Amino acid sequence: MSEEKLPKQSENFSEWYNQLIQKAELADYAPVRGCMVVRPYGWALWENIQKALDGRFKETGHVNAAFPMFIPMSFLEKEKEHVEGFSPELAIVTIGGGQTLEEPLVVRPTSETIIGHMYSKWVQSYRDLPILINQWANVVRWEMRTRMFLRTLEFYWQEGHTAHETAEEAEEETLKILDLYTDFAVNEAAVPVIPGIKSEAEKFAGANRSYTIEAMMRDTKALQSGTSHNLGQNFAKAFDITYLDRNNELQYAWTTSWGVSTRFVGAIIMSHGDDQGLILPPRLAPIQIVIVPIYKNEEAKQKVMPVVKQLEKQLKQFRIKVDDRENVTPGFKFNDWELRGVPLRIEIGPRDVENNSLVVAQRDIPGKEGKLFLSMDHIADQLTTILDDFHNRLLQRATDFRDSHIHKTDNYEEFKNIVQQGWAYAYWCGNAACEAAIKDETKATTRCRPLDQEKSEGKCVYCGESAEYRTYFAKAY
Amino acid sequence: MSEEKLPKQSENFSEWYNQLIQKAELADYAPVRGCMVVRPYGWALWENIQKALDGRFKETGHVNAAFPMFIPMSFLEKEKEHVEGFSPELAIVTIGGGQTLEEPLVVRPTSETIIGHMYSKWVQSYRDLPILINQWANVVRWEMRTRMFLRTLEFYWQEGHTAHETAEEAEEETLKILDLYTDFAVNEAAVPVIPGIKSEAEKFAGANRSYTIEAMMRDTKALQSGTSHNLGQNFAKAFDITYLDRNNELQYAWTTSWGVSTRFVGAIIMSHGDDQGLILPPRLAPIQIVIVPIYKNEEAKQKVMPVVKQLEKQLKQFRIKVDDRENVTPGFKFNDWELRGVPLRIEIGPRDVENNSLVVAQRDIPGKEGKLFLSMDHIADQLTTILDDFHNRLLQRATDFRDSHIHKTDNYEEFKNIVQQGWAYAYWCGNAACEAAIKDETKATTRCRPLDQEKSEGKCVYCGESAEYRTYFAKAY
Repeated sequence: MSEEKLPKQSENFSEWYNQLIQKAELADYAPVRGCMVVRPYGWALWENIQKALDGRFKETGHVNAAFPMFIPMSFLEKEKEHVEGFSPELAIVTIGGGQTLEEPLVVRPTSETIIGHMYSKWVQSYRDLPILINQWANVVRWEMRTRMFLRTLEFYWQEGHTAHETAEEAEEETLKILDLYTDFAVNEAAVPVIPGIKSEAEKFAGANRSYTIEAMMRDTKALQSGTSHNLGQNFAKAFDITYLDRNNELQYAWTTSWGVSTRFVGAIIMSHGDDQGLILPPRLAPIQIVIVPIYKNEEAKQKVMPVVKQLEKQLKQFRIKVDDRENVTPGFKFNDWELRGVPLRIEIGPRDVENNSLVVAQRDIPGKEGKLFLSMDHIADQLTTILDDFHNRLLQRATDFRDSHIHKTDNYEEFKNIVQQGWAYAYWCGNAACEAAIKDETKATTRCRPLDQEKSEGKCVYCGESAEYRTYFAKAY
Repeated sequence: MSEEKLPKQSENFSEWYNQLIQKAELADYAPVRGCMVVRPYGWALWENIQKALDGRFKETGHVNAAFPMFIPMSFLEKEKEHVEGFSPELAIVTIGGGQTLEEPLVVRPTSETIIGHMYSKWVQSYRDLPILINQWANVVRWEMRTRMFLRTLEFYWQEGHTAHETAEEAEEETLKILDLYTDFAVNEAAVPVIPGIKSEAEKFAGANRSYTIEAMMRDTKALQSGTSHNLGQNFAKAFDITYLDRNNELQYAWTTSWGVSTRFVGAIIMSHGDDQGLILPPRLAPIQIVIVPIYKNEEAKQKVMPVVKQLEKQLKQFRIKVDDRENVTPGFKFNDWELRGVPLRIEIGPRDVENNSLVVAQRDIPGKEGKLFLSMDHIADQLTTILDDFHNRLLQRATDFRDSHIHKTDNYEEFKNIVQQGWAYAYWCGNAACEAAIKDETKATTRCRPLDQEKSEGKCVYCGESAEYRTYFAKAY
């Protein structure tokens, strides 16, 4: 941990974010512009995200595979919207083994095209469907303005690609994954996302419909945290994914794709962190509990350390770390682990050993108020409850923050103020011209039309024409 | 599964290998030359390899991270041997975001250089050492002759990169990992590898010493299945990885690197498979047990299926699959799962239900001899033992095969015959000229000098000069 103080979140959110990532050793800048090195602490967080998602994918019948990262340039050109969307962002390999390649190879920005090519080979009959494949992969998009975790040239993600017999099944899959993402965000990361549908302008290049989970960061900006796309028959037609149906007739398949990326690490940092640093959700935190032994002399150390070692064994079910560094003070350690967002800190001193007790400090409640004085008896059970409560509190805090910064409005002047420091929930006619004008005038974009909304009657906040649904508008990452 | 018959292993080993990979759906050819698509069954096998290795890395104090796949061309040039070794095999990105790049980017063939650059930033003091980082990554080497899993342009691996205070610690790490790899190969994959040291000609480009685990395939060719390199201070000097030691003096660090790749999937296929197809080691097999219900009519089905469902629940601790396909016969299913190398097949028919029994067919023992007739009581415990026995039998079979195809020799004429269908274990003076001449005349290369060998006195099998150690010579993949 470097000695300079972290900027205050409330004073300079952007610098707070950048410096926190470095100080907490989540990631570092790579020697290639726009690329990052994900350091062990950041990667351990991502591995826990992977585990939580991967388990959910497998429970719902999906399997993993690996497709090549090099895609012939001609493949991208087969789907018109897709190539238009991605061609400005491509990294291209033109030399291989010392020779100029006949056909340049694109480093995948996403894999619909190469996977579509393989599916057309693998799918012959309705019996071959559905195909429910996911891959964990690195992808490259040549972005001009980059930001650690949020937008880097190379990033890490999972991309699911499925193929189905009917339009209904594809839509069902798309929504099933959106639910899965929502469940993951809420119940693992304590990030209260809003699931909804993207506008035509904001949808994935080549999709019929894109769904999203949208989260509010602590600067009130929105972060698209995961997306699920119904691709209709667009890619099936471009790549000739056909099958003989139950009546022996040739049909195009219906496909979907969906992804969550290392961007979600950014969502966690900016949903929960505070002036002291990270606050990590306990179910994903690389270290859930840190134990700091407290002693001032060798005698006290001899008393404390055996109990600490014993406790470490007793708490094997948690992700635990004993900080037994000799060259720094307990106070330094407290600050260090607070910066790194470890949910619980256990302090044990000689007095605690005598009393068969210990002190638990909770990262999200500063000072004495957050301290719990516990008996060693049934300590694992007690900590399980405390971690669950921690998760619930974090989720509640983020939900309260979000809800207090979303404002329903039917007035464009009000709207313009709202989106300076929150989200506006307003009727929109669905017209791309209104959406573009709002973006131009306020920098706020449509985030999503939430799925749980009933149709109603209103007037577009911009043009006043009739509108059936409200949409969330916000500035976004 | 395609209907064409698999070529016999003994008649055309190479075609047997290629077709088996396709038929068993481990992998498929990608639309880019030399690249493969790892299909779900193959990827599940690789995931189990990953789990087994990753657990061992973490137990020995290593952590995972992720470094960028793009490396500035100038980085590679900083270590002379390294760039000479890798420059003919590079894939190079010259265009990004529509612009020609000022400095071309290499797609990593391995990551010593970019990781060395980061370590020089992270390491200041002896307190920052050791660094024990691993990454799971894709890498690219532009090979001319490619082969599924064994040599593909893009492949998947783990690469460990560590930095230490002393030469001794670096050597200890290098050997610790070699041990770890050996333990993994033997105890997870049932592949009886020989750990040893590589010759100067065969070592990694930029290493001081390379260690290897060498396995014999069923065509008697050798396969290098994992390597661990002591890099000395070569990369520390090239990338300025320096630290203040305990006496406050500036020192170069000592580094190591080590890797196991998807090539190991090839090792498993070629160590254990037979004319019927794959035989997968139970501890890594994606499916350990397949249950095939046997019935001829609806009445029998009603009797059998509830028991099958119940059994599936009872055997949750195993990786299990119920093959309840209605459109193929049990005989077809038997062949299918034999081809795919599932260790155990449970058959349950109406008679078994009545008798509270079941039949277990063991993949490695063909016909009736391999069949076990078991009671349903304590079935999970019985199967645990049966799978352990299976592993031991597979390891013994591969060891016997290997040992019967290794021949000690002190005569070059004999040597030349031996390496046509096995490995020669012969004294070699250590002179690169002899090694090169042998390779030229016989196609056999030095595989390794085994670590457990005592120094002795002999004469080089090629030149007759005095030699202290025997070395394994073989044709290799």
